Amino acid sequence: MTDANQDPLSLVVIGASGDLARRKIFPALFSLYCQRALPDDVRLFGFARTDLDDAAFRRRITEHLTCRYAPGASCAEEMEAFLARCHYVTGEYGSTDSILDLYQRMRQLEPRGKVNRLYYLAIPPSIFVTTAESLGNAGLVSCGEESQGWSRVVVEKPFGRDRPSSDELALALGQVFQEPDIFRIDHYLGKEVIQNLLVLRFANSVFEPQWNRQHLASVQVTWAENLTLAGRAGYFDRYGIIRDVMQNHLLQMVALLAMEPPDELEASAIRREKVRLLRSIAPVSRADLVTGQFVAAEWDGRQVPGYTEDPAVPDDSRTETYAAAVLRIDNARWQGVPFFMSAGKGLDSRCTTLRLRFHPLAHRLFDRSGHRPAPNELVIRVQPDEGMHLSLTTKLPGLELKLAERKLDLSYGDAFRDHIIPDAYEGLLLEVMRGDRSLFLSGEELAASWDVFTPVLHALESESAAPEGYPFGGPPPAAALRLLQWAEDARGCG
Amino acid sequence: MTDANQDPLSLVVIGASGDLARRKIFPALFSLYCQRALPDDVRLFGFARTDLDDAAFRRRITEHLTCRYAPGASCAEEMEAFLARCHYVTGEYGSTDSILDLYQRMRQLEPRGKVNRLYYLAIPPSIFVTTAESLGNAGLVSCGEESQGWSRVVVEKPFGRDRPSSDELALALGQVFQEPDIFRIDHYLGKEVIQNLLVLRFANSVFEPQWNRQHLASVQVTWAENLTLAGRAGYFDRYGIIRDVMQNHLLQMVALLAMEPPDELEASAIRREKVRLLRSIAPVSRADLVTGQFVAAEWDGRQVPGYTEDPAVPDDSRTETYAAAVLRIDNARWQGVPFFMSAGKGLDSRCTTLRLRFHPLAHRLFDRSGHRPAPNELVIRVQPDEGMHLSLTTKLPGLELKLAERKLDLSYGDAFRDHIIPDAYEGLLLEVMRGDRSLFLSGEELAASWDVFTPVLHALESESAAPEGYPFGGPPPAAALRLLQWAEDARGCG
Repeated sequence: MTDANQDPLSLVVIGASGDLARRKIFPALFSLYCQRALPDDVRLFGFARTDLDDAAFRRRITEHLTCRYAPGASCAEEMEAFLARCHYVTGEYGSTDSILDLYQRMRQLEPRGKVNRLYYLAIPPSIFVTTAESLGNAGLVSCGEESQGWSRVVVEKPFGRDRPSSDELALALGQVFQEPDIFRIDHYLGKEVIQNLLVLRFANSVFEPQWNRQHLASVQVTWAENLTLAGRAGYFDRYGIIRDVMQNHLLQMVALLAMEPPDELEASAIRREKVRLLRSIAPVSRADLVTGQFVAAEWDGRQVPGYTEDPAVPDDSRTETYAAAVLRIDNARWQGVPFFMSAGKGLDSRCTTLRLRFHPLAHRLFDRSGHRPAPNELVIRVQPDEGMHLSLTTKLPGLELKLAERKLDLSYGDAFRDHIIPDAYEGLLLEVMRGDRSLFLSGEELAASWDVFTPVLHALESESAAPEGYPFGGPPPAAALRLLQWAEDARGCG
Repeated sequence: MTDANQDPLSLVVIGASGDLARRKIFPALFSLYCQRALPDDVRLFGFARTDLDDAAFRRRITEHLTCRYAPGASCAEEMEAFLARCHYVTGEYGSTDSILDLYQRMRQLEPRGKVNRLYYLAIPPSIFVTTAESLGNAGLVSCGEESQGWSRVVVEKPFGRDRPSSDELALALGQVFQEPDIFRIDHYLGKEVIQNLLVLRFANSVFEPQWNRQHLASVQVTWAENLTLAGRAGYFDRYGIIRDVMQNHLLQMVALLAMEPPDELEASAIRREKVRLLRSIAPVSRADLVTGQFVAAEWDGRQVPGYTEDPAVPDDSRTETYAAAVLRIDNARWQGVPFFMSAGKGLDSRCTTLRLRFHPLAHRLFDRSGHRPAPNELVIRVQPDEGMHLSLTTKLPGLELKLAERKLDLSYGDAFRDHIIPDAYEGLLLEVMRGDRSLFLSGEELAASWDVFTPVLHALESESAAPEGYPFGGPPPAAALRLLQWAEDARGCG
């Protein structure tokens, strides 16, 4: 695989000693390198506060590189060549001097003439703006003239805490980078199953005629984890599950699931339809939201401490670790179809699923068999066991008419046994280099996403009551189950 | 499992030394016996020309009994008890004396009072009528008075050669048995996948809205065998593939697939809708039919003789071993949707499938990906590997947008791993005893089925041209592929 753009490229990871860089970004870049998807003339720069030389930095990133695309003996060779292109600069994020050090190192290694530059800001949001400004002040951001090469920046959530703070951040970032050069990453959009959503909907004629209020009774978007916050609690406590998962990942999946067909398969057309959809979602009302916070419980044979017992979490924290919400889409396709969204830490299993439930049978033909057929469901399994299934009522083999639910199933593991399923970051980084914005959030999308949750987030903050406790391992608060119209024993996974 | 009707029962198999009786009927009866689905007071009588005593007869039927429902040590016990209930009478089918011998044997073993009697005519159609008449004359058929118990008769195809001869047969049989007591068997209706058709359609809300001309482009009913006629050629040559397979098995499957929803899940309501559907099929026109006859070829590493080289087939036989037809259903649901039907011996694989093809995509969104998505298909696999699948276009995992077809699959072997899939005859025989006619052809259905094919069968007979030759192992005649709108390399299976 080769990519069209063969101009020299400098890939700069700001925050290069952190977890994201080591676990995701550098492994993805190495995978792309092995697939010949990086330009031949590429250099990688790491920048962070940790004091490292190139050799130490290279050792550190080697840890998580995998040989998936370079099997056997060639892996060591590929790795050596890749690491030789990796350089490291120690510095403070807000310091002009430090950024000038980075500048000098880059200029020293870059060829003369046109050079493209990609900055990945793998740093906390509090220093996004000062860092971007330093890059701009150091002359490391081109103004977009063709002869200079491009300068693109990749940023990750959180993009603020609500609509106003997000706007503020956007404005500040916009002083340094132009909107088309800002790539707001949501790694769920890089997942294969999510990338398949538009194909499933628009490259097949079987489902799209049913993808509306006439045929669907509800949509469930479920995100569940059976973990504590281990190590991330300090960050998490400032945001909570609504900002951490719902406003971004889950809402993005809803947008792809529910949007109208784009006029063409181009970023601008796709993002236009996503924005339209997001804008047609009514702001979540307080009555349509239930929050919870996990408390200590025995789970899986061990005693798990409650959320507020984490040393990084204040004892009186009111941050929600669980939330359930009903989204209402005010357009011709979805009017009256509730989108049930739930996300929680400390539940009894781990999964992300999209579940489209068809209307129950109108025809009572089979009632006499003693079995009330369950409504059909099309379930898209984002993780784990990526794939999808359609639940059907079937006759059980045997001499009597007995009915039971079974699944028409497509599991990625089986269906694509001979394909390597790339990590989300590989595809996303490649798209940044290509300049294809389909899989990234536009500023308009981001604003529309915040508008869905900002009023209810403010309402929550003005309340004095704490979220309802639920035992680690679930079930979630009873009020949530009522809101989601789930049975007591439902979990959303499976 | 117990059945409601516990009145004493005599099960009489006429033609008990033949293949059908040994391979299918007695094994099915033994399975029912092991499942306690026969009345406690049951006797089984075999009648045929072969000279056997009870012991020899019992040895003969033991060959094909299986222990599926009586695992381990209990099997021998069950078998012994079952065989002790089996009796045999030697005689000529048309002879009143012979039938009187049977009568005396039955009366001798039957209790006094009410006894139900079930006659299975496992004999060639040429002696259906005389045999039935003999049974009637011997007083072995009750006139339906409640106190006497019922007398039911099971008959298998062929029911005549065309509409007039079928009517004639029906009239003669009607002299002895009343219509509600005549059970015309089509063992395809006993197959689990076929019994599931109504459940799939009417106990699910996902497919029925698409089960019509708006959403489906065509329906393909394919029956293929990779065998010669070995042993059956004499019989087959008098009928041909249209009468042997199409007019009955395939047309029955079409009726269940295409009929309107019945008002209730009762035999009368189901058969009413099947008759309505069959009557709305236009008689097949000569232009909509292609026939073929296989000729010698090397296949699978060996030389296979042609159809007319079979010693039981006349050298100048014009009997078709392959046929392809287009059925046109003249109603609001199916107007303009061709039902492509094909059946053939001597093809390259063995399968029976129902294939619903959806309209091609209207939206050309993905054309630029270089892949024209194939139309979606819902495929019901009747045999082998019973089950169904829905073909979908999906994104292949990887960094480029590449599309490919994959299947959402439900295989009976996997989905019902913990269930024994009963043989078609088990369910059918049980239904006869219960008096449930849902799975049997009414006289009206039979007549309507013949009406679909009778004109074209007569047209074929009046022609002097032989069917087009095709090599054993296929492909079928090119004219058939054109008629079916298949590509040269299509086979229908898979």
